[in-house]
Amino acid sequence: MTELRRDPVVDRWVLIAGERAKRPSDFDLVHGERRNAVCSFCPGNESLTPPEVAAVRPDGSAADTPGWTVRVVPNKFPAVSGETGTHEVIIETAEHTASPADLGAEKLRAILGMWRARLRALRDAGLPYRILFKNQGVAAGATREHLHSQIIGLRVVPARLREELAAARAYRARTSRCIWCDALAAELADGRRIVEDAGAFVLLAPYASRQPFELAIVPRVHAPALEDAPGDIDAALAATLASAFSRLRAAVDDPPFNLMVHGAPDFEGEYHFRCEIVPTLTKLAGFEIASGCHINPTPPEQAAKVLREAAR
Amino acid sequence: MTELRRDPVVDRWVLIAGERAKRPSDFDLVHGERRNAVCSFCPGNESLTPPEVAAVRPDGSAADTPGWTVRVVPNKFPAVSGETGTHEVIIETAEHTASPADLGAEKLRAILGMWRARLRALRDAGLPYRILFKNQGVAAGATREHLHSQIIGLRVVPARLREELAAARAYRARTSRCIWCDALAAELADGRRIVEDAGAFVLLAPYASRQPFELAIVPRVHAPALEDAPGDIDAALAATLASAFSRLRAAVDDPPFNLMVHGAPDFEGEYHFRCEIVPTLTKLAGFEIASGCHINPTPPEQAAKVLREAAR
Repeated sequence: MTELRRDPVVDRWVLIAGERAKRPSDFDLVHGERRNAVCSFCPGNESLTPPEVAAVRPDGSAADTPGWTVRVVPNKFPAVSGETGTHEVIIETAEHTASPADLGAEKLRAILGMWRARLRALRDAGLPYRILFKNQGVAAGATREHLHSQIIGLRVVPARLREELAAARAYRARTSRCIWCDALAAELADGRRIVEDAGAFVLLAPYASRQPFELAIVPRVHAPALEDAPGDIDAALAATLASAFSRLRAAVDDPPFNLMVHGAPDFEGEYHFRCEIVPTLTKLAGFEIASGCHINPTPPEQAAKVLREAAR
Repeated sequence: MTELRRDPVVDRWVLIAGERAKRPSDFDLVHGERRNAVCSFCPGNESLTPPEVAAVRPDGSAADTPGWTVRVVPNKFPAVSGETGTHEVIIETAEHTASPADLGAEKLRAILGMWRARLRALRDAGLPYRILFKNQGVAAGATREHLHSQIIGLRVVPARLREELAAARAYRARTSRCIWCDALAAELADGRRIVEDAGAFVLLAPYASRQPFELAIVPRVHAPALEDAPGDIDAALAATLASAFSRLRAAVDDPPFNLMVHGAPDFEGEYHFRCEIVPTLTKLAGFEIASGCHINPTPPEQAAKVLREAAR
């Protein structure tokens, strides 16, 4: 059983994931890519995952058989379950592709459609916090090479999102405007951290980037969550994601990274949905853990310049 | 030049460490132990570090020559410097020892004496935030094998410490007691997470442990910072540190970890100094980065049992 625990002093939470319980000998202290002998995400191996909850597949084809192009299954080793929430895996492509830079905008658009559908399903299931994320590469926490993303839905809203919402509400009360809309306008006016102005979305290096070559994809339209945004933005978002992956490959040799799609809990019109891509190029160590303050050796202005000039 | 930046929305800070500035090709994406061809921390190689700022060495021996047993130098690639703060490295032993479990209580006592002296020196230099940490192993962020710890002194107090102090003050206002003294008493009464009650210090697995086999070393005496605590506790603290390192070696095969010594800014009698040891046994990934909530697959009660039974 999963248990959510708060630190006795500060507002820091931990999921004690009993269903993942491990003995000391289970920890993988060996570094380097873990190649699974049999890939349970490849077509033909559908029986190695829990039964699918959704898929993009030819009309009339049976669930848990090959033919799908995107497939969603419950996580076999969930971080949350039952009372605490749900944990799903989105298998992003039938091919055993290893780099998201190989996906291209068309496949990304199909994946985005599934992200949207599953985020809606978890919202409709009454889960107030829904976080979509992608761990790319072993250093970023991926345990499987086959491209996939994940959604965790929680029955509680974590402190970080509550802090963001409080800041957005305070800003709105003071200015009648959205803090993220204004921050985006200021970035566009400044220009030094803009990587690509793609119209509906802007690709930029955040002012307080935690990692070298960190990126944000911010929609110009104010929508609180991806699942609530107008569907006609999907093509533009897919193209901007493809651009981000290609630029990271060209500039930093396909680095490991974490991608996150941040959205609002229900009825929180204040929130401004956006994607973050945080490469795993430096390690969090004692200072960062103790202080909560990151050390980034690459100024984001410098990262933006390199990424602007990177061939697509 | 180092620059401290705050996120435009939330109270999250980043040190943009210009002096560490790296080109894209500089990032080490290769995993596994980096063995430095020549160890600049070994005796005889003193000229490879900046000039020492302190050392335990025989009377009359010259600075930056062999003979020392503990040696402190400025970090050659500082995360902070000048206006922002200082960054020192404590070379903990003359031998090229790789595991802190091999140090033993006597050497640890000499190291502790130096920690105390440098923390005092940075306090006297007017740095309100002083964090002592040790990154052990490549996965925990160490770039050198030779045992060492580090102190960063900052001119600002990070949000995390301010949050702790606010919670401690609110608790004191309500109860007239110290929140950490009371939490320690509750842990001792409960017993399930106690690894060793060593009298002056208690070794325990924190209730909201972020990582498997996380440990805290909490002093029974209420002292706001190591450098202010009575000197007669050093022998007990060294013995408890030695016990923690030995137990981690026996239970989890000498894992990589981050050790941190948390102390108060000046004149903050509310604070209760303590050490944390956070093994690097699971990776922070998209969910943790997005939510601020950790996932720990090993309940601390189970970790405490294993560590209690581990041979010393």
